[in-house]
Formats: sequence, C-alpha cells, structure tokens
Amino acid sequence: MEFQFLGTSSGTPSKSRNVTALALRSLGAARAARHWSLIDCGEGTQHRILRAPWSLHDLHAVFITHMHGDHCYGLPGLLASAGMMNRTAPLTLVGPAPLRPFLEGVMATTELGLPFALDFVDVENLADADVLPDLAVRATKLSHRIPCWAYSFTEKAVERRLDTARLAAGGVPRGEAWGELQRGRPVVLDDGRVLQPEDWLQPGRKPRKIIVGGDNDSPALLVDEARDAEVLIHEATYTEDVLQKVGPGPQHSSARMTALAAGEAGVPNLVLTHFSPRYQEGEGAPSMRDIENEARAVYGGQLFLARDFDRYQLGRDGQLSLISGRSA
Amino acid sequence: MEFQFLGTSSGTPSKSRNVTALALRSLGAARAARHWSLIDCGEGTQHRILRAPWSLHDLHAVFITHMHGDHCYGLPGLLASAGMMNRTAPLTLVGPAPLRPFLEGVMATTELGLPFALDFVDVENLADADVLPDLAVRATKLSHRIPCWAYSFTEKAVERRLDTARLAAGGVPRGEAWGELQRGRPVVLDDGRVLQPEDWLQPGRKPRKIIVGGDNDSPALLVDEARDAEVLIHEATYTEDVLQKVGPGPQHSSARMTALAAGEAGVPNLVLTHFSPRYQEGEGAPSMRDIENEARAVYGGQLFLARDFDRYQLGRDGQLSLISGRSA
Repeated sequence: MEFQFLGTSSGTPSKSRNVTALALRSLGAARAARHWSLIDCGEGTQHRILRAPWSLHDLHAVFITHMHGDHCYGLPGLLASAGMMNRTAPLTLVGPAPLRPFLEGVMATTELGLPFALDFVDVENLADADVLPDLAVRATKLSHRIPCWAYSFTEKAVERRLDTARLAAGGVPRGEAWGELQRGRPVVLDDGRVLQPEDWLQPGRKPRKIIVGGDNDSPALLVDEARDAEVLIHEATYTEDVLQKVGPGPQHSSARMTALAAGEAGVPNLVLTHFSPRYQEGEGAPSMRDIENEARAVYGGQLFLARDFDRYQLGRDGQLSLISGRSA
Repeated sequence: MEFQFLGTSSGTPSKSRNVTALALRSLGAARAARHWSLIDCGEGTQHRILRAPWSLHDLHAVFITHMHGDHCYGLPGLLASAGMMNRTAPLTLVGPAPLRPFLEGVMATTELGLPFALDFVDVENLADADVLPDLAVRATKLSHRIPCWAYSFTEKAVERRLDTARLAAGGVPRGEAWGELQRGRPVVLDDGRVLQPEDWLQPGRKPRKIIVGGDNDSPALLVDEARDAEVLIHEATYTEDVLQKVGPGPQHSSARMTALAAGEAGVPNLVLTHFSPRYQEGEGAPSMRDIENEARAVYGGQLFLARDFDRYQLGRDGQLSLISGRSA
C-alpha cells in the first residue's frame, strides 16, 4: 500500500504546504493497481496532482472527512478538469450528507456538466457500500465543530501460500489441482474428493490497515479502531502551549494528545499532519521541531511529520517507509 | 494604474500557468492607493496571492466575468482565508446573477461564516452602483456559452495644474488662494470676488482606461468600448488553425480575431491571455510563439502575451510597461 500527501496545512495554504489532501492506493491486486483514492480535497489539490504521479482517469473514489472548505473546496475544480480530460468512468464520492448539495449547487450555478457519473455515498451508510475493490473502508466518527470522520482502509484479501506438507500427506497430486487451490478455486479430484481451498492454504498474513483521520479534538476516539492498524495518520494542528492559548473553540488536537492516543492503541507508525501555518519549517519560533519533540516525548513508535509530496510505502511486513517527494 | 496576472491558462491549470485571475489598482488617489480589485478568481488564486504583493485585507472588490469554474472556483477559499485573517471590511462582489446563489450555497453547505459583509452587485445593475472610489467601472456584454462580460476601469479624477498665467492676469494673489483652487475648493477674495476652481485650472489629461475581457468569441463587441482605452486585456485561447479544428462550440477567440478587433479600435496596447494549455512555452508545437506571430501579423500596436505574475504599469502618459514578475 502507498500514500502521498498532497496538502498538510490547516485552514489556509502556506508557500510550502497546501490545505488537506491525501492520495492512497493498494499495490496488491493487479486489476486495481492503478486505481487510487483521494482522502479530502482542499483547494489546489488538482494543482498538486499536476506535480505528482496520479492520474484523474484512475481516481476511483474520493472520501471527504468533513465539509470545512480547506478539506473540500478543491473538489469542483478537480471534477471539472477530469471532465475536460474526457474521463468517462463513474466516480464514487463518500462524505457527510452536505457533500451532495454542495457539489450539486456548484454544478448548477456554474453550469458544470460532467461526462461521467457521480455516485454519492453518505458516510453514515458506508457500512452498506462496497466502495473499493481491494480495500475495506470503515468510518469512525470524530469530534469537531461540524460532523467529521476518520476513514480506515484494510486490505480485503492477502496472498496465501499452499500448505504443501498437508497436500502431500493428503495424497493430492501436484500440478493443476495445486494451482487451482492456490488461485482460491475448489477442485474435484479423480477419486471424487472435493477440495475447498480454505482447507489447503496456510493462514494468511495480517491484512494491512491504514487510518486517515479528519479534524478532531479527541484522538482517543480512534484508539479502538487503531489497535490492529499499522499506520495512523492524524492531525496535530498545534503544540500544547499554542492549544492552550487558542482555546478549545477550533476543536483541534495537539501533538501530545495525538501521540498519547497512538501510544495507547499501540499503533507502530504515526504520521502527523494538518499543521497550523504558524509553525516554521526552519529555525523560527514556533517551529515544526516543537511539534516533533512534543510527540516524541510520549510516543515510542515510528514517528513522521508529513510534508507536501511525501510518499510512503507500507510493505507486506508492516514496515512503513518514506520513499520520495515530488515527481516533477 | 497597475495590474498583475495571477492566472493566464484557459480551462485547467498547467505547471506554469494557473486559471484566470487578475489584480488591478489605481495608484492615483492616496486614500485608495492600497485598495485593489480582483477580476476573476479561478481555483488557486489565493495561492498565487501568497507569492505576490497583494493583501486580502486591502481587496476592495471582486469582479467575475462569468460563472465558469476556471474563473470563480477560487472565490470560496479566498473569502475563507480572508476571514481567518480577521478581515472586517465589507467586500463588494460584482458578477452575473448566479454568483450570489453559488457563494451562498457553498457557504451554507460548508458552514462558512465570514467576519465581514459581502455586498453583491449584479453586473446588469453595475451602471447604478458606485463600486470603486477611484475608478469608474462599466460592463460590456460579450458572446460566450454562458452570460459573460468585460469590465472597463477608467480613472474618475485626474490631477490638474493651475492656469498660472490666467491667475496672474486676473490679479489673483499668490498664496493661500492658489492652493485652495489647486485643491479644488472655491475661494472668496478680499475684493469679494468668488473664484470657482474649474475656471482657473488647466484642462486635465485624458483619464486612463483599461478593459479586461472575459471569455468571448466576438472580440469585435469591444471595439466601441476600446476606442478611448489605453489597454485591452483579452483572451486569445487558440491560434486560427486550432480554432478551426476545435470548432465554434467552446466560443473562444483566436489570436488573430482579438488582434484584428484591437487594431480596429486603435487601442495602443493589447495584452493577450487565457491560453489553451496545449501551447508550449518552449520550442514544442504548438507554441506560444505561434499565438504571438499570428497576432503581430495583423496588429501594429504594443503587443504582450501575459504570463503568471507579470506586473504592468500604465503611466500617466498612457505608456504601458512590464515591470516585474513574482515577488517571492
């Protein structure tokens, strides 16, 4: 599985960080290998995509965590550009109920016609939908000024090896029968026995799971969902001292709050994002280093601070690696 | 007067050109010197402003030529950012009638509250409005797939010199009386005479006038309006050969069509913009050079092809100069 940050700033863009968007895909199933999903779509996301290895033709679904503008104002322009590129495949849009009237209102008042269908899925009904071919998606409700969700993405199928010792002991002849079982299909032997693949495959590895949070002032809400995840991506808008100054009104998390929840869940990889533009990249104060130090003080796992264009791979072994930045 | 291009691409952004936006201000009146206007606001305009010398606090009015997304999808995010910066001054929004339901729909579905008022002016009623303190604004209807306008900006007042020969001949004593007349105020002399400033000032120079067109397949519609303008800024989406291939459906102008109309109006400066992303900046084909050559072949005035961040000054003498690109 891999994901790339297309925006990591909260509220407003800065010169180095755009507002929120994340691209995610599973590299597992060949048929889905080029399909990808977008989680949130702040203004300027299509501009980021111009400089990243994602095609609007292959975008399978968009998941919106909540309806604040810095998480969805890029959607109308992205859809319009996909239309101008003659995309024809339907696009699934998952989000809070106002997502549909938001887009339909924009399309009506700006006479935007699209050459592809939009399939809206209300996040409240996500459990009944089968949105992605390769990943199971669940939503967890968060705590923010307006309704907001986290999305978790879990591999639906993992590759499994034949239990060759068992096959040999059972007298199942090598060759076509083994191949069919490996491909997950039942086999009828010459002696009349019917073999179900489930009985002749080794247990699969753990399916990988990535959680992408929206804006949230209570990261503890994700502890249960994160217990079996390899990666938690969550906002850390402020350090504790700034959070105290700003007050609870904006309903965001500090780096400490998020790191404590990640530690409690035992999630091995934590990627912080959605930073207030007040944090400087360099030596200025307050700096991104303050966010990092605060999280490290209470979290012992692998910690990352997201930057725009940072691209991560989560291996089958559960190892998360930062592999590259922008492509061009 | 000065203006800066914040986007010069048609339809979709490219790596070097954003979708349409233009900043404009009059440097004449001191009280308005920091006030500026934005004409069109494609997605990502606020990102361009981050790298240009314009503050959202000083934005006085936004003029939208038409409701296609590449000319207005940046407006919700720009307003939201102005709000987060604690702007309190009311903002005037001039545009086609759907501009108001567009913004009100976005604001309602994304729960965007602003700490400043929005004053909507329907472009059809612009003649009755006094939108800018320093510039008279007129709208001219164009020909496009949806209703579209050009805006012309003309100085309301020009500095005028005292007619000193006449004052001396009339026996008006130097000093306070001359100063008051220069400031445009009537004067009562010791001998009882009442002097009206109009009678003692030399004729003013011609007020400067800049026309900013929207999308348009009939640039001849602007010939009358452009006869007394110093600058015409108008789309030249294609060259003639591409226009023939694309057909009339999109309702855009070729470089030749725009240049012919500018020549007919006798406007001394023509700035082309809104180029199809198919035109390459370098040696590729088709290239921006093709647009330039086609326009030059039929237009003898000063010709410019706009680029993002290009900044122009129009002097009191009517001379247009390209002064700089991006600030940071």
